[in-house]
Amino acid sequence: MILDLAGIFVFAISGGLVAVRKGLDVFGVLVLAGTTGLGGGFLRDVLIDATPPAALADWRYLVVPVVAGLITFAYPSALGRQERRVAVFDAFGLALFCVAGSLKAAEYGLGPVPAALMGMVTGIGGGMVRDLLAGRVPVVFRGELYAIPALAGAAVAVAGERTDVPIAVVATAGALTCLVWRLLALWRGWQAPLPASATPSV
Amino acid sequence: MILDLAGIFVFAISGGLVAVRKGLDVFGVLVLAGTTGLGGGFLRDVLIDATPPAALADWRYLVVPVVAGLITFAYPSALGRQERRVAVFDAFGLALFCVAGSLKAAEYGLGPVPAALMGMVTGIGGGMVRDLLAGRVPVVFRGELYAIPALAGAAVAVAGERTDVPIAVVATAGALTCLVWRLLALWRGWQAPLPASATPSV
Amino acid sequence: MILDLAGIFVFAISGGLVAVRKGLDVFGVLVLAGTTGLGGGFLRDVLIDATPPAALADWRYLVVPVVAGLITFAYPSALGRQERRVAVFDAFGLALFCVAGSLKAAEYGLGPVPAALMGMVTGIGGGMVRDLLAGRVPVVFRGELYAIPALAGAAVAVAGERTDVPIAVVATAGALTCLVWRLLALWRGWQAPLPASATPSV
Repeated sequence: MILDLAGIFVFAISGGLVAVRKGLDVFGVLVLAGTTGLGGGFLRDVLIDATPPAALADWRYLVVPVVAGLITFAYPSALGRQERRVAVFDAFGLALFCVAGSLKAAEYGLGPVPAALMGMVTGIGGGMVRDLLAGRVPVVFRGELYAIPALAGAAVAVAGERTDVPIAVVATAGALTCLVWRLLALWRGWQAPLPASATPSV
Repeated sequence: MILDLAGIFVFAISGGLVAVRKGLDVFGVLVLAGTTGLGGGFLRDVLIDATPPAALADWRYLVVPVVAGLITFAYPSALGRQERRVAVFDAFGLALFCVAGSLKAAEYGLGPVPAALMGMVTGIGGGMVRDLLAGRVPVVFRGELYAIPALAGAAVAVAGERTDVPIAVVATAGALTCLVWRLLALWRGWQAPLPASATPSV
Repeated sequence: MILDLAGIFVFAISGGLVAVRKGLDVFGVLVLAGTTGLGGGFLRDVLIDATPPAALADWRYLVVPVVAGLITFAYPSALGRQERRVAVFDAFGLALFCVAGSLKAAEYGLGPVPAALMGMVTGIGGGMVRDLLAGRVPVVFRGELYAIPALAGAAVAVAGERTDVPIAVVATAGALTCLVWRLLALWRGWQAPLPASATPSV
């Protein structure tokens, strides 16, 4: 639970930073912080029909992104300088969300492949909604290795959940898969492959 | 009910005007009119699981935005000149929707904070979907004071609904809170605060 | 069923081509292929509350867009040259989806007008989500005659479903209505009407 809120906090900070860079007002900062922190879980809950989403049923889930948004609004330049550190925390959030999301989807009766996909959506959905609202193509499509580690971690969790291994071990293995891969990608600058005819037109 | 349809009509006009300005075809005008008029209610109904949305169950909810869209398509310049008047009517629609949305959410068992948020979403959601479809950052994030009055009106309605005060009085108080604040903001040009380091990059 | 998968395949190809043109990475190509192929059905299923969407319950619905995406990623220029042929196949997909979508919505208890609209959404929704994710205004709003044939086909199917005519005949009539109209529009370059004051500002 505390881990969950910490993940939402870190995601919300990244949403708030995008809003500040785009010159949005205080309300835009709060909304982008909120959708980035909670959007992945919302998307998952609507798709697997676990409505109303958990975030609407417990006020603590709403307070955390608001606080994160206000902090970002007040100290944007200080946080902007820490962006590399934010990216590291963000990798922890991603690892947590992809595992929690896939296990929740499996619990709601989805098969293993869709459950792993839902885990990935939980991890990356908030950032995608953030980028749509901020009027830019989701960064997750733009070469950085972000979604694949989330999918891998979710797949490990879903696969393990069908065995006799205790759920805590399975969840840790899934989260570590995602976390290590993502941190390596950040550190080494790994990129996802681009199409052969690399003549992008905007 | 008639108020509801009037609110949808005004919102749909604003959606149609954006579509005309973007040079979309008649179908684009109708879709933007429809999503602006009905989008907020759709978002709310999907999130609180009141599906299928009311707008799909009653044809009158569909006829109104289509008529509004066709009028906008036929007389765009006449309506464009009346934009200030449209903004005033729009404030009435916003006041109505935020109260109706929050009371419906409370009726579906949401707590007071999420119910107030759902009221705000009902009021501003249509305009946000309109801006996304038209390929621009939602204007509601861009400094104009629009979402905060909606949230305030919804909060008044939700708070009052828990007391013994008759629901008609509560709804009127909530709607007036939103309406007066929004009209003052329009008249005085009030803006929401921007971040300190106001060096927006696009 | 096989027809359904073929429709998803063709839609997914069109999504992958847009992603390649925008210079997205392999993940972006797969996601755009997947959302274009499955997005219309997702939107419909969430709105009529048929969750979890069929595409999440059957792995074959997920394999098809992944394969289509990988093919597009590997041979973008070959497929790009065939774009006119892709548009023809796409018309078949549109005809199929608008009929299947409207009949499913009618089965879930929607009235005839909303059911026809849901059929149209099933046909055009995937392309709209594709364009939103790729950061452009949906092409379906931009003058090409695409949504109206889908709506017409869905309307024929819904109207026929209320008569004694066998369902196979009704479905075929609806699909042919959409298909012939769309192919004629492609062949003759028919456009949807634009607003009178055609001075679009971007």
